[in-house]
Amino acid sequence: MTDNQIWVRGVAMTAFAKRSTDGFAEMSQKALVAAVDNAGLTLNDIDELVCGTGYGGPLAGQRIAGPLGLTGPRITNVENACSSGLAALAIGMEAISSGRARTVAVVGVDRLSDMGRGALPLAQDDIEVRQGVIMPAVYAMRARRYLEETGATIEDIAKVSVKSRRYGSLNPLAQMRNEVTLEEVLGSRPVATPLTLLMCCPRGDGAAVAIISADAPGEARPGVVIKGLSVQSGRFTDGYRDMTRSELSERTASAAYKSAGLTPADIQVVETHDAFAIAELMYYESLGFAEFGRGWELIRDGATELDGRVAVNPSGGLMSRGHPVAATGVAQICEAYWQVAGDAGEHQVSGVTNVLTHCTGGGIAGFDHGASGVAIVGRA
Amino acid sequence: MTDNQIWVRGVAMTAFAKRSTDGFAEMSQKALVAAVDNAGLTLNDIDELVCGTGYGGPLAGQRIAGPLGLTGPRITNVENACSSGLAALAIGMEAISSGRARTVAVVGVDRLSDMGRGALPLAQDDIEVRQGVIMPAVYAMRARRYLEETGATIEDIAKVSVKSRRYGSLNPLAQMRNEVTLEEVLGSRPVATPLTLLMCCPRGDGAAVAIISADAPGEARPGVVIKGLSVQSGRFTDGYRDMTRSELSERTASAAYKSAGLTPADIQVVETHDAFAIAELMYYESLGFAEFGRGWELIRDGATELDGRVAVNPSGGLMSRGHPVAATGVAQICEAYWQVAGDAGEHQVSGVTNVLTHCTGGGIAGFDHGASGVAIVGRA
Repeated sequence: MTDNQIWVRGVAMTAFAKRSTDGFAEMSQKALVAAVDNAGLTLNDIDELVCGTGYGGPLAGQRIAGPLGLTGPRITNVENACSSGLAALAIGMEAISSGRARTVAVVGVDRLSDMGRGALPLAQDDIEVRQGVIMPAVYAMRARRYLEETGATIEDIAKVSVKSRRYGSLNPLAQMRNEVTLEEVLGSRPVATPLTLLMCCPRGDGAAVAIISADAPGEARPGVVIKGLSVQSGRFTDGYRDMTRSELSERTASAAYKSAGLTPADIQVVETHDAFAIAELMYYESLGFAEFGRGWELIRDGATELDGRVAVNPSGGLMSRGHPVAATGVAQICEAYWQVAGDAGEHQVSGVTNVLTHCTGGGIAGFDHGASGVAIVGRA
Repeated sequence: MTDNQIWVRGVAMTAFAKRSTDGFAEMSQKALVAAVDNAGLTLNDIDELVCGTGYGGPLAGQRIAGPLGLTGPRITNVENACSSGLAALAIGMEAISSGRARTVAVVGVDRLSDMGRGALPLAQDDIEVRQGVIMPAVYAMRARRYLEETGATIEDIAKVSVKSRRYGSLNPLAQMRNEVTLEEVLGSRPVATPLTLLMCCPRGDGAAVAIISADAPGEARPGVVIKGLSVQSGRFTDGYRDMTRSELSERTASAAYKSAGLTPADIQVVETHDAFAIAELMYYESLGFAEFGRGWELIRDGATELDGRVAVNPSGGLMSRGHPVAATGVAQICEAYWQVAGDAGEHQVSGVTNVLTHCTGGGIAGFDHGASGVAIVGRA
């Protein structure tokens, strides 16, 4: 398969932040230039650019590339809500596998500070959204149900936040860098009971870029490849009709494992979509690391800590690294690259050969239908 | 090459209209269901859906597919300003050529009535846009320059509008269905001198869908294939630095001809991006039907009428069919299919084997960088 491999040649991301001093294009350009440099390439080596953005507006990729003088490459702008980053990666990989491009820049970027303080413009005209069924409310209902159906306690959910902030404190690019205690998580102000403020990811601004290529890097550089990828759409729960079980993420993960020829046992690090603390427990299950209804055992046992059986969100995840919608999926690829290359610094996991990344969006809160992506990045 | 052909199996579009009574999802769903029906298929035959939209907001394709129960297919949302429709077609074709999908629904949709009456939210923070360099102003400058540099007169530009409305009057799906005289075009109110109101495309709402497939239709159905496609990004003028010469559209057309193994002499019908009347004359040249600076001779000689050497915009084009941004590129594919299949009704051109479609957006009015697409659709 070596001939058809798609290599991650280099990555970069901005430090995610609230009210970034850089504008939408500027932050993207900084990440793009840094990623190309990290790859040991130049902007002239970029054959195509795919820009994932949720709220970047018209011709986002062109507005990033133009001022850099990148007027040759084909540019495609892709949107798939919170999984826009992996949707963009998928399109970039297909540009390579079709033979049309050798090297593609995959950008994920959003600047939520441009959106004002209110709710993001999702399906605000939807009847359910108008009744208050917005994302925190949906995840709060899931949390209540999860607590009802399983052996989990609210402390188990809060522990996800404690873990997230601990690793965020080790990640210089994270938006939230202070550690918090279990008591602080439980005692922070309620957002949608049982979820408190510290169980929800923050809004912020950021850009992340991965340079992928059909060409292997030189011997001196890390040999990191994309071993599997799946991007899917569908209802959050479809066949199972259970609000604590993401049929969509399960299906996507299953397809990604199959495309990589790997199983959960082959994965040492997971970057998953912990937009809310309860989500991480649910996705332990969706991604195959725990049986349905038993994800909480992993956080209670420390199995998903940096030195656990499978380290989950060593970057701090969405709750600590931050969640500038479309930037998240590509930032997860950055983290995967760093973990495989041994470049993750203070939050490095030891002995990493394969990392699974997972993002998902929509499907609830006015959307009958969402999107999900799972990538498996590993040592060549 | 027959084995690798991509067939246009069926198409449909809504009648483009100002303040459509159908909402964004409803109009798209009507076009999607009609296109699937036109193809002799069912929704279950759709393996993937690609939705091109400029202003449809998050998860546009999912919001269209979900209520129809289309919860299986992968959905990708694509934006490339006025060329979003062909950018979506390109992604759909690659889903097929990669072997991942057999049959893909390509949707183009925008509902500009949702945007209020002001300027579309392009790069409004751009310094040039703030000085008034918006699209009509840019095309007015191009028109002035074109009149200065070539033998064209303002009547030649006005004739494009007269032709457009004549064919629009023959197209039941067109937004503007009344014929106008040369005097009416010249005498309508100035928008940006020398361009008058009747030299500018209207705003409106609409959806268009093409069902493309690796599988050939049955013998009884029209055998229509996509012979070539190119989607490119870049500056409107780059190498040439001439405001009347679209380097980007030239480059895109050249690549599309090359991919199809055809030349302008092989094309009987063109659907081009006449957002303003002057644009059609410029694109006669960019697309290879006239030498640079001599496009006006074609309209003066009647060479681009329905019975001319090459029929241009028999649908009425953007100025009469209407221009709901991302819907345009796919509506052009609908028209191409109908022309090749002999189903174009009153605006049918005789003896059509190949149709070229062209759309382009951005690159001006605050964007240093734009996008363009050219497709060649023909008899198998």
